[in-house]
Amino acid sequence: MSTLSAIHAAADRLQGKARRTPLLSSPFLDDIAGRPLFVKAECLQHTGSFKFRGGWAALSALTPAQRAQGVLAYSSGNHAQGIAAAAAAHDTPAVIVMPSDAPQIKINNTRALGAEVVLYDRGSEDRDQIGADLAMSRGLTLVKPFDDHEVIAGQGTVGLEIAEQARSLGVDAADVLVCCGGGGLTAGIALALEGENPAMVVRPCEPEGFDDVTRSLANGHICRNDKTTGSLCDAILTPQPGDITFPILQRLCGPGLVISEDDALRAMALAFNRLKIVLEPGGAAALAAALFHGDALTAPTAIAVATGGNVDPALFAKALDKFG
Amino acid sequence: MSTLSAIHAAADRLQGKARRTPLLSSPFLDDIAGRPLFVKAECLQHTGSFKFRGGWAALSALTPAQRAQGVLAYSSGNHAQGIAAAAAAHDTPAVIVMPSDAPQIKINNTRALGAEVVLYDRGSEDRDQIGADLAMSRGLTLVKPFDDHEVIAGQGTVGLEIAEQARSLGVDAADVLVCCGGGGLTAGIALALEGENPAMVVRPCEPEGFDDVTRSLANGHICRNDKTTGSLCDAILTPQPGDITFPILQRLCGPGLVISEDDALRAMALAFNRLKIVLEPGGAAALAAALFHGDALTAPTAIAVATGGNVDPALFAKALDKFG
Repeated sequence: MSTLSAIHAAADRLQGKARRTPLLSSPFLDDIAGRPLFVKAECLQHTGSFKFRGGWAALSALTPAQRAQGVLAYSSGNHAQGIAAAAAAHDTPAVIVMPSDAPQIKINNTRALGAEVVLYDRGSEDRDQIGADLAMSRGLTLVKPFDDHEVIAGQGTVGLEIAEQARSLGVDAADVLVCCGGGGLTAGIALALEGENPAMVVRPCEPEGFDDVTRSLANGHICRNDKTTGSLCDAILTPQPGDITFPILQRLCGPGLVISEDDALRAMALAFNRLKIVLEPGGAAALAAALFHGDALTAPTAIAVATGGNVDPALFAKALDKFG
Repeated sequence: MSTLSAIHAAADRLQGKARRTPLLSSPFLDDIAGRPLFVKAECLQHTGSFKFRGGWAALSALTPAQRAQGVLAYSSGNHAQGIAAAAAAHDTPAVIVMPSDAPQIKINNTRALGAEVVLYDRGSEDRDQIGADLAMSRGLTLVKPFDDHEVIAGQGTVGLEIAEQARSLGVDAADVLVCCGGGGLTAGIALALEGENPAMVVRPCEPEGFDDVTRSLANGHICRNDKTTGSLCDAILTPQPGDITFPILQRLCGPGLVISEDDALRAMALAFNRLKIVLEPGGAAALAAALFHGDALTAPTAIAVATGGNVDPALFAKALDKFG
């Protein structure tokens, strides 16, 4: 079960392993957002995204026999790196199924962290099937990217930290904006805040054309995206919310927010100039929503989770050239 | 007097005001450095550099009458922003004397933070004289960028945090590399570590052609730079070490390290790729020394202070294009 106590248990196992990332802010960003805005900089987490938390939580929850046999993951890159790093630290072999159009830096880093990478075509092949087949044939334990209780618990530790850090800053009620793919991080944070600060409402943030969670919440049932490729926000292009995550999102989240690619690039340039952090487009979605879609927010304060920074230098330079 | 107890007193005043910046690392950087390498990310401090600490320490140490009258600072940009932000928070007017060739972002930010900016020519005018004249005519209190006991105490809080954070990671003996201009931060950290962890040795890091501290330490007396302009590392181009800072550096520091501009740009690109932080050239000097001049280090572990991230987007894009 995905529960607050599972998140606290994951936090205990992550103690001293995951970084407690800072909650950053800038008066210049407050001006643009029209309210106090805080940014939870998970791009500074090990492997450059929050995914290390879920990876560590999942690996540390396996039996010794499972760890000896190895794990398998499928991912556009950030979950891949999180699992690869957590597996290496647990002396566990890792096989990662990645889309062939994932940013080269994510593929390279996953290999460099010691994992075996298997590439597939995002448009024509089903990564779930490929993953299941590999798990079966090699006796690997599949660690899904979001629809997994331990992964959700690990990502939920971000929510525990947000509650603590906001309290120390005197912040109570807030919209907590989260870049949302399959909803593992969003669900984990929502569960953590339900327990630790119910005055905070989680708001999923997605790119145009890939707003499956926003539409699913609005319609009251799981909706799929028409496309699976074609956005710069590669980290959060999942076909639909998960069977485990969606009921949690439905019970706890406010309406989703949808951003454009230019919103994401503009937010990347502002994070560069004002916070001195590196964000990838998908990792900048929540910040973009807070900065440019504040009319959709209801609380006096916004907290945006900046989920990852694994971006190719050429794309980052493009964001700076266009909006820096 | 610049003492450990003054640093602890500054830390008390900075509590909840300055950010406790994270100590970051990456296995990819460890490989390049040839040893465990930790990076104290002061680019994530308020205003994008450690200078906010010294600014806050100095402003909070003034009398109410002095604060009402206002403060004056001269700076290439980071001290300017640190003082401007700290002064605004103390409801104190601030006049900042800045070189006309400072990065535009630093001039703009200083104004946007509410300070009055007075520009001067770095090659032909003496900023100390301009500052002294302004202080006299307007009754302002001059807050020097480094040769000031309260400023040194404020910067020294970086050293307290390094000692604590390294202890929690199990790190004892280390070379602590610090980007060094006039030596305020370097002296403050050296004093803090003398008290909190004498197994750590501070090593000043400077750009080629502006290695006044390195030469001063080698020669046993204060040496000046021939030039005052002409390096990308604008944040650390001071003519010579300070009268207060040099005796501290001489008593406590190991030999200085000198880096090239390309070293700095390469370190910026690696900090982008591996740590997801934005560094300016002068703020990357210590990281560059740790990565590319490790043969000059003596301890098993290196800690580099990444001092600032206030860099124009075009220059950052150049670093990524060349070395990203």
